[in-house]
Amino acid sequence: MSPFRASAPITDSWEHFELTRADGVATVTFARPDKINALTFDVYADLRDLLIELPHRGDTRVLVLRGQGRGFCSGGDVNEIIGATLKMAPDDLLAFTRMTGEVVKAMRECPVPVIAGVHGIAAGAGAVLALAADFRVVARSARFAFLFTRVGLSGADMGAAYLLPRVVGLGHATKLLMLGDTVPAPDADRYGLVSELVEDDELDASVAALAARLSDGPAFGYAQTKALLSRELDMDLSGAIELEAMTQALLMKSEDYAEFHAAFTHKRDPRWKGR
Amino acid sequence: MSPFRASAPITDSWEHFELTRADGVATVTFARPDKINALTFDVYADLRDLLIELPHRGDTRVLVLRGQGRGFCSGGDVNEIIGATLKMAPDDLLAFTRMTGEVVKAMRECPVPVIAGVHGIAAGAGAVLALAADFRVVARSARFAFLFTRVGLSGADMGAAYLLPRVVGLGHATKLLMLGDTVPAPDADRYGLVSELVEDDELDASVAALAARLSDGPAFGYAQTKALLSRELDMDLSGAIELEAMTQALLMKSEDYAEFHAAFTHKRDPRWKGR
Amino acid sequence: MSPFRASAPITDSWEHFELTRADGVATVTFARPDKINALTFDVYADLRDLLIELPHRGDTRVLVLRGQGRGFCSGGDVNEIIGATLKMAPDDLLAFTRMTGEVVKAMRECPVPVIAGVHGIAAGAGAVLALAADFRVVARSARFAFLFTRVGLSGADMGAAYLLPRVVGLGHATKLLMLGDTVPAPDADRYGLVSELVEDDELDASVAALAARLSDGPAFGYAQTKALLSRELDMDLSGAIELEAMTQALLMKSEDYAEFHAAFTHKRDPRWKGR
Repeated sequence: MSPFRASAPITDSWEHFELTRADGVATVTFARPDKINALTFDVYADLRDLLIELPHRGDTRVLVLRGQGRGFCSGGDVNEIIGATLKMAPDDLLAFTRMTGEVVKAMRECPVPVIAGVHGIAAGAGAVLALAADFRVVARSARFAFLFTRVGLSGADMGAAYLLPRVVGLGHATKLLMLGDTVPAPDADRYGLVSELVEDDELDASVAALAARLSDGPAFGYAQTKALLSRELDMDLSGAIELEAMTQALLMKSEDYAEFHAAFTHKRDPRWKGR
Repeated sequence: MSPFRASAPITDSWEHFELTRADGVATVTFARPDKINALTFDVYADLRDLLIELPHRGDTRVLVLRGQGRGFCSGGDVNEIIGATLKMAPDDLLAFTRMTGEVVKAMRECPVPVIAGVHGIAAGAGAVLALAADFRVVARSARFAFLFTRVGLSGADMGAAYLLPRVVGLGHATKLLMLGDTVPAPDADRYGLVSELVEDDELDASVAALAARLSDGPAFGYAQTKALLSRELDMDLSGAIELEAMTQALLMKSEDYAEFHAAFTHKRDPRWKGR
Repeated sequence: MSPFRASAPITDSWEHFELTRADGVATVTFARPDKINALTFDVYADLRDLLIELPHRGDTRVLVLRGQGRGFCSGGDVNEIIGATLKMAPDDLLAFTRMTGEVVKAMRECPVPVIAGVHGIAAGAGAVLALAADFRVVARSARFAFLFTRVGLSGADMGAAYLLPRVVGLGHATKLLMLGDTVPAPDADRYGLVSELVEDDELDASVAALAARLSDGPAFGYAQTKALLSRELDMDLSGAIELEAMTQALLMKSEDYAEFHAAFTHKRDPRWKGR
């Protein structure tokens, strides 16, 4: 999306998850199914770098997160992360916790819409990755567990104490983050955590349909919708309204806006260019 | 409400919508039923001016927004606004988008409670006008559609990306603004967008009952409730609590507070003066 | 919890409510059942002082608020508060409204989780006290009434116009604070105001079970979850993520984090120390 590339090369191969690309949709699949896709330091580092690189590629209009095997992601690996951090010095610990936060920040600031397709368990950091996505397409049998206090940590991890109250309200967020209980998908849906609740055997098709729709749609409009939703959480009404006025005036000079009018006038479907 | 009038005259006649006044209730009715009340530049301009003038009149304690014919408001007119903006220079575009934002800002800052009575479709800017109201009384068959991306624009329009997450949460707001899908009233109700869901044939009576109740009630208390709800979205806890302490101390010197106590003591209904 | 005690003595006896302590759980019971526990100036002052003192005691890990008799708390006493304030000078009024706000601020900033066990009515200031708690365990027949406008005041009282939109969204909050209607528990639950909705005869046991669970759990993790949930309502995404990174790095040096790993490794339950 960015026309401004400098010297840094594009990464050819991502070693710590599977990455496929097709029709503008990049799909990251966590691929440690024997550990229910428990995260390692390397997975976080790859996610951080991918999210920063993604807008520099011209070929990606949607990012999808999925998990191989029985679940979406069981969170930080008990041995490879919790065990390892017990032996770390404070500066290394902070480097690690900052990296995990950078992943969430990059997900929220990336102009590409992110879909989490959730089945089985989304636990700990896995639950926060789903929370940081723009869309959560969730299988009816899936569960969320923000289980940080259950390992002796703060329920506020990777931005969860910022994002969750803004998604489900302070009351539900307090319960979920303080207690770390496992929340079945229908309850999560009632709280507002689910974008689309689907039957288990419809998850793949529902994720693919949403991804295709976003990939085929007006990408510039989507990017500016996401950007302003994220930024305006931190702005006052007056500034937000001015930002929206500026944004919309710019978009009214875009090819897609003219294309809508031409298509409407000629009673045909618009052909979006994303610019 | 403001005792401080200067030289500017009160507008006698509003040409771009119907305006009626009775018993402290001003009702704006969008009146282009053949276009499902599609908005024109003139309607926005009249709304902006009316909302600024309203608190200067002593005769209005509630503002009601309604639509003639089949629906509430279908948003910006495809030809008179979309077609026209395609030919505009950047500074004129910004003047237009700022004007639409000013309408929403004025709705939120106006001390008079605003009720949107929604039937049929509330689409695009029509959906945002309903969103910016204090109360949405909604017929069961009504629908909302924040359809901005479908015309190639940002879903963030007129403050929608600020207001909608604060009403329905970030998850639902992302879905509604990014995709621009049509949302039936019962779903909107589940998301928290509806103040009162009523049967279609009860809409007029329900709007009238709420308007009468607000018009007959303690207007100063209502105005300060609305003002602080709006302002405190942008304040921190400590400042908000101080503002409420100041506000309540002032209200405790109002005639209405004394009137409540007198009425309670004498076992009669209070007669509110709104001061 | 604070290891830093200075000269001020700990209060032996609280005269304006009942206070019991057992197993790390302090329970405040409003004890004017003939007035449905209407609040007096003295109750507010005692609540304010208790909440500030609580973290200085080593013996309290959870605070529970309950009401004797028919209801939780009917709010400010009509004669002892409303009648009295009618005769007060502006500076005394402000001292009073500030004190009530200080109670809510202390509830939100206290590192100890607060549970409100609500039966019967929670009205006016009683509804705000429940709102300011971290958990609302609510009997099915209970009701909430933010009835401030009905006494001629602003619906924004003691931080309600800050907290309620962040718990139930701006739409529901506007309706509740502006109109002051009585809301049955199941509706409050649908809005997101209820943490746990229970049958009437299960309220005592449910409150006790949650209090015991919190008392037995990792208190440092709970305290930092609550602190960040409160603070991050007022922070931007970037600052919030940095704060969470700092917090989690500190917690990773805590005894409880090591204890989790040891317990997990040895397949036993963790024994939390709260440090």
